[in-house]
Amino acid sequence: MGTKTRKVVVFRGSKTLPLLSLLTLLLSVCLCQAEDSAMEDIVTEKEAEESHRQDSANLLIFIMLLTLTILTIWLFKHRRFRFLHETGLAMIYGLLVGVVLRYGIHVPRDINNKTLSCQLNNSPATFLVNVSGKFYEYTLKGEISPKEVDDVQDNEMLRKVTFDPEVFFNILLPPIIFHAGYSLKRRHFFRNLGSILAYAFVGTVISCFVIGLIMYGFVTLMKSIRQLGGDFFFTDCLFFGAIVSATDPVTVLAIFHELQVDVDLYALLFGESVLNDAVAIVLSSSIVAYQPAGDNSHTFDVTAMFKSFGIFLGIFSGSFALGAATGVVTALVTKFTKLRDFQLLETALFFLMSWSTFLLAEACGFTGVVAVLFCGITQAHYTYNNLSPESQDRTKQLFELLNFLAENFIFSYMGLTLFTFQNHVFNPTFIVGAFLAVFIGRAANIYPLSFLLNLGRRNKIGKNFQHMMMFAGLRGAMTFALSIRDTATYARQVMFSTTLLIVFFTVWVFGGGTTQMLSWLRIRVGVDSDQENSVTTDGVERRSTKHESAWLFRLWYNFDHNYLKPILTHSGPPLTSTLPSFCGPLARCLTSPQAYENREQLKDDDSDLILNDGDISLTYGDSTITTASSASGTSRRPGPVNTDDALDHELAVGDHELVIRGTRLVLPMDDSEPPLNLPVDDGGTSRRLKI
Amino acid sequence: MGTKTRKVVVFRGSKTLPLLSLLTLLLSVCLCQAEDSAMEDIVTEKEAEESHRQDSANLLIFIMLLTLTILTIWLFKHRRFRFLHETGLAMIYGLLVGVVLRYGIHVPRDINNKTLSCQLNNSPATFLVNVSGKFYEYTLKGEISPKEVDDVQDNEMLRKVTFDPEVFFNILLPPIIFHAGYSLKRRHFFRNLGSILAYAFVGTVISCFVIGLIMYGFVTLMKSIRQLGGDFFFTDCLFFGAIVSATDPVTVLAIFHELQVDVDLYALLFGESVLNDAVAIVLSSSIVAYQPAGDNSHTFDVTAMFKSFGIFLGIFSGSFALGAATGVVTALVTKFTKLRDFQLLETALFFLMSWSTFLLAEACGFTGVVAVLFCGITQAHYTYNNLSPESQDRTKQLFELLNFLAENFIFSYMGLTLFTFQNHVFNPTFIVGAFLAVFIGRAANIYPLSFLLNLGRRNKIGKNFQHMMMFAGLRGAMTFALSIRDTATYARQVMFSTTLLIVFFTVWVFGGGTTQMLSWLRIRVGVDSDQENSVTTDGVERRSTKHESAWLFRLWYNFDHNYLKPILTHSGPPLTSTLPSFCGPLARCLTSPQAYENREQLKDDDSDLILNDGDISLTYGDSTITTASSASGTSRRPGPVNTDDALDHELAVGDHELVIRGTRLVLPMDDSEPPLNLPVDDGGTSRRLKI
Repeated sequence: MGTKTRKVVVFRGSKTLPLLSLLTLLLSVCLCQAEDSAMEDIVTEKEAEESHRQDSANLLIFIMLLTLTILTIWLFKHRRFRFLHETGLAMIYGLLVGVVLRYGIHVPRDINNKTLSCQLNNSPATFLVNVSGKFYEYTLKGEISPKEVDDVQDNEMLRKVTFDPEVFFNILLPPIIFHAGYSLKRRHFFRNLGSILAYAFVGTVISCFVIGLIMYGFVTLMKSIRQLGGDFFFTDCLFFGAIVSATDPVTVLAIFHELQVDVDLYALLFGESVLNDAVAIVLSSSIVAYQPAGDNSHTFDVTAMFKSFGIFLGIFSGSFALGAATGVVTALVTKFTKLRDFQLLETALFFLMSWSTFLLAEACGFTGVVAVLFCGITQAHYTYNNLSPESQDRTKQLFELLNFLAENFIFSYMGLTLFTFQNHVFNPTFIVGAFLAVFIGRAANIYPLSFLLNLGRRNKIGKNFQHMMMFAGLRGAMTFALSIRDTATYARQVMFSTTLLIVFFTVWVFGGGTTQMLSWLRIRVGVDSDQENSVTTDGVERRSTKHESAWLFRLWYNFDHNYLKPILTHSGPPLTSTLPSFCGPLARCLTSPQAYENREQLKDDDSDLILNDGDISLTYGDSTITTASSASGTSRRPGPVNTDDALDHELAVGDHELVIRGTRLVLPMDDSEPPLNLPVDDGGTSRRLKI
Repeated sequence: MGTKTRKVVVFRGSKTLPLLSLLTLLLSVCLCQAEDSAMEDIVTEKEAEESHRQDSANLLIFIMLLTLTILTIWLFKHRRFRFLHETGLAMIYGLLVGVVLRYGIHVPRDINNKTLSCQLNNSPATFLVNVSGKFYEYTLKGEISPKEVDDVQDNEMLRKVTFDPEVFFNILLPPIIFHAGYSLKRRHFFRNLGSILAYAFVGTVISCFVIGLIMYGFVTLMKSIRQLGGDFFFTDCLFFGAIVSATDPVTVLAIFHELQVDVDLYALLFGESVLNDAVAIVLSSSIVAYQPAGDNSHTFDVTAMFKSFGIFLGIFSGSFALGAATGVVTALVTKFTKLRDFQLLETALFFLMSWSTFLLAEACGFTGVVAVLFCGITQAHYTYNNLSPESQDRTKQLFELLNFLAENFIFSYMGLTLFTFQNHVFNPTFIVGAFLAVFIGRAANIYPLSFLLNLGRRNKIGKNFQHMMMFAGLRGAMTFALSIRDTATYARQVMFSTTLLIVFFTVWVFGGGTTQMLSWLRIRVGVDSDQENSVTTDGVERRSTKHESAWLFRLWYNFDHNYLKPILTHSGPPLTSTLPSFCGPLARCLTSPQAYENREQLKDDDSDLILNDGDISLTYGDSTITTASSASGTSRRPGPVNTDDALDHELAVGDHELVIRGTRLVLPMDDSEPPLNLPVDDGGTSRRLKI
């Protein structure tokens, strides 16, 4: 039933095929137009109803597309095809539907769109129109280019299947990015934190400027040979550099995960691609802010650049702080209430708090997507430990599902857009230049940084790992979302069309070639995280992370372990023992009763990083492979035993192997698997054992 | 970042309090207006950005409200307060925020809204405005009354927190209704099917007409004493009758579930309230269709009434067919693919197919919400059995969460609306009349129908059950959604305000008094479904359902068991044995290999209704209580052993107790609990055992 069906309810027969019903809808729209104008009231309501039906039918097309994709993914997984990933598949289906919509369906000219030439001095958000005594409310959808004005009247249907770009930023990207943060393999992530930050921050900025400069060269060339159909400023080139610098964690890493590729390579790529999404989004908006009003910005302005840099830092740190703050609040709430007795409430609270991060950041003028990323990491690091095992499963599964749906939706929409978007500008010179620039930009990110990082890393990033990182720089959802956000000017349209091709190429060719490339580069696969660890002989401790980074890491670790964990979770040493004595009452108030009980006990859920150092002493050794692993990319050497740190190492905990009073426990601590809940006595809380 | 922030990115400090940020937003809106009009371009983009921020802040208010509600619910559950249910709480919080928004915040007059008096001959869905050379696109939001036109300029903020009523029908109601269908206790539902259908269909129509007639009396009275501020037709009264006849399953049944009230009473109330939502929604739209254009319909038109009846039947059966069809398709897909090996894909497919039911129904002109209800029932009856145990859990949990969030959102929004909705018409006479009419209407539904049903039921509906059903007729989400859908005319505004009060009253007073009422009416609580069943002595068979209904039921059962279940699921007898021999090849093709294996085996997941009658013979006895259950409402008598049916009864299966070769198995078949997955050998599929 449509909007305000006060007088007309039209009952029609069952039309189960979406395309058929779409056609019928279009037909009925035409028929409506032939009706008597005295019936205008009814026509309006009928139109609203038709519009609602059309919307339903459009959405249905996407749902059907996704369903089809799921079935095909299953078939591919079932038959173990690895040459095409689900995202690539989704794009192909999107393309096919796009072709059908574009060429297969004849669309009548919709004469109902009036172009009014009201001379207003601004455009309000809400707009009232008085149609012969009745008032209709209109809401501002956005500015459109004069070229689009023709298109609106030209092909209404194609416009209808086009979503508002803000849908991507407000609905589809947040769950994807949150899931990335929430499912981060924290142990490997923190172990490689320095390198990941270098690639994500320094690397993305390098890539952005390299691509921007190369593209500016091409644009200048194109201007001189008059191949350019509109303005194209240096800031536009930089903006392009920023958006195509965001690499996508989805496609390659799904294959990595399936093939169980080396955990360090996985951590480097995953960490980089997750963080550089955040960097790219803030970078691009800073570049936009750098561009002064009036579009006369082809000269370089140092003041504006510093201002942009300030904006970059401000937005980034603000979003980071907000995201972390919401995570901390959620951790505190779940710690100090017994919400875990009611899993539904717990899951709902977790979901709502995570969502509110996004809204809060947007309402404050920060970037919601970035805030959501750091909220996800904080939730995984603290809140997750406070949740009941059921809620841990539920939240993981919920965000996994949301991520899956949103991701496949974006990729199939991408395919669709190639044919349904009506302002494509495919400029061959620009496209060739862009492909070249993207690869040079990626190379300028990976190789020099890897060289510099290797100077400081004990656990070197091998050449084959570097090539793989170079190869794995796919462009995906974030690049697409950033480029479709604004397609008003000529420059943006050129960028959008080019970006689309880059995404298609990288996802199909690089994504599809991952398995092949892994074997060419002789990167070992089938690394079982547990198996890798259990080969370490008991009592032998290794530290292959560099001394300085270990120092930085230990500083953070000590703070986290002694203060943050005890405050925010039930684990860690009691605050009464870590805080100075004058904080006694506060410490007693904040420390969970379990902390005292757990003091001498293994707390399994957070042992990826933190273990009580009451009885069990620990170290953060890298996985040290003593068995033959010829194809290993990292050159692992048993490092000298580092004895100058405060902790008394007795046991390699980073390797997940604990020897406690003669009992050997090998804990599967891979984050992707639900944690094995040991039947440990933790104060009456029920645990379950899966068989 | 707002829409198209091409030139302006405003960076602001962190404002973490939502109300504070809301205020700041409003302030900044004022500041924007003071800016130079030469900056109009920037102003427009800033406005779009502000509008986005405002939207985020508004949504944030609701998220915070929900979070607060969750925490208070936990506190109530923790302290075992039962006088106020979560929905009642959500409404109270909504009310408080509504008061703050209404009276606590000074809202500046927004001069940006222009009222144009363009003399168009209709209002198109899309609308282009040429603002000094730039084109802006506007989309039709809907018609508003002249009174609202002033309000738009009066209090922009209050309008902003008001959602489009279609949000309820397209986003919030579908998961609630689907969950109701999916979590239906099918065994008890089917056992009482006849009575439930009678209450839901006949009862709702009776209630609708009784309320309509009483209200027409009141309206006529009010007209004569000139208390009416606008038109109020008979169809309006009938429409009011239809919308307030939808009873809400949420509040009372949550308490019933917690207290473990008698399963038959639960089934009757749940079944009735779920189905009468569907009836009310179709009934109200049929009444709207009955009202001819021109509003001159205070005379009774028999032709139009029959037309309405036809529309009612058409929409209802169409929606039913579509919902069932999608469920069947999902069952077939999950049966014939090995999708169960990939739980994520399985869950995603299930979710998408269920959602597509809604869209499909809407696109075809049927009622999505009704289709979704029957889809939920079909999914639970067939598809659920094909899913892997993980997906069974996941889908249950997912829809439970969605239902919880949507429900609490609607109820807190209800509270908010009392103060933020700007066209309330509280007419005391109408309100008094409505309360009277609602109770008389409910009584006219329950008591006469119970009397008639008891004539035919062996398992009588006791007086105390009837009183409880009368008392439990709360009005909730559906009534609210139907009444807020259209508030354009005076009559609709009166209805909306009255409906709001009815919902508040019934949820707080009746919902809060449920526990008390149960003890007054001496309805036994703490009925353990399993315990109740295990008291039946082995081998004794009882049939307390009436002969005819048993005949109807057996007819359906046989068809379902012999044909539908084997086609749609892995259970049931092989089709090769039930279909005529000439269908051999088809039967072999459709029968799952497991069906042959399972032939002599207990299939636990669907044993609530269906069991193989190969080796194990069965009966569908009601729970027969042989132990002392003095407070039982149903007058249960061990009925005479019914031997005239085709099945050879040897074992009471309806009572969940099976004696198979000396082993006694008591199966907990309460739908609310995850089914106990027995480690039965079902062809290598992994089962898990929860400890």
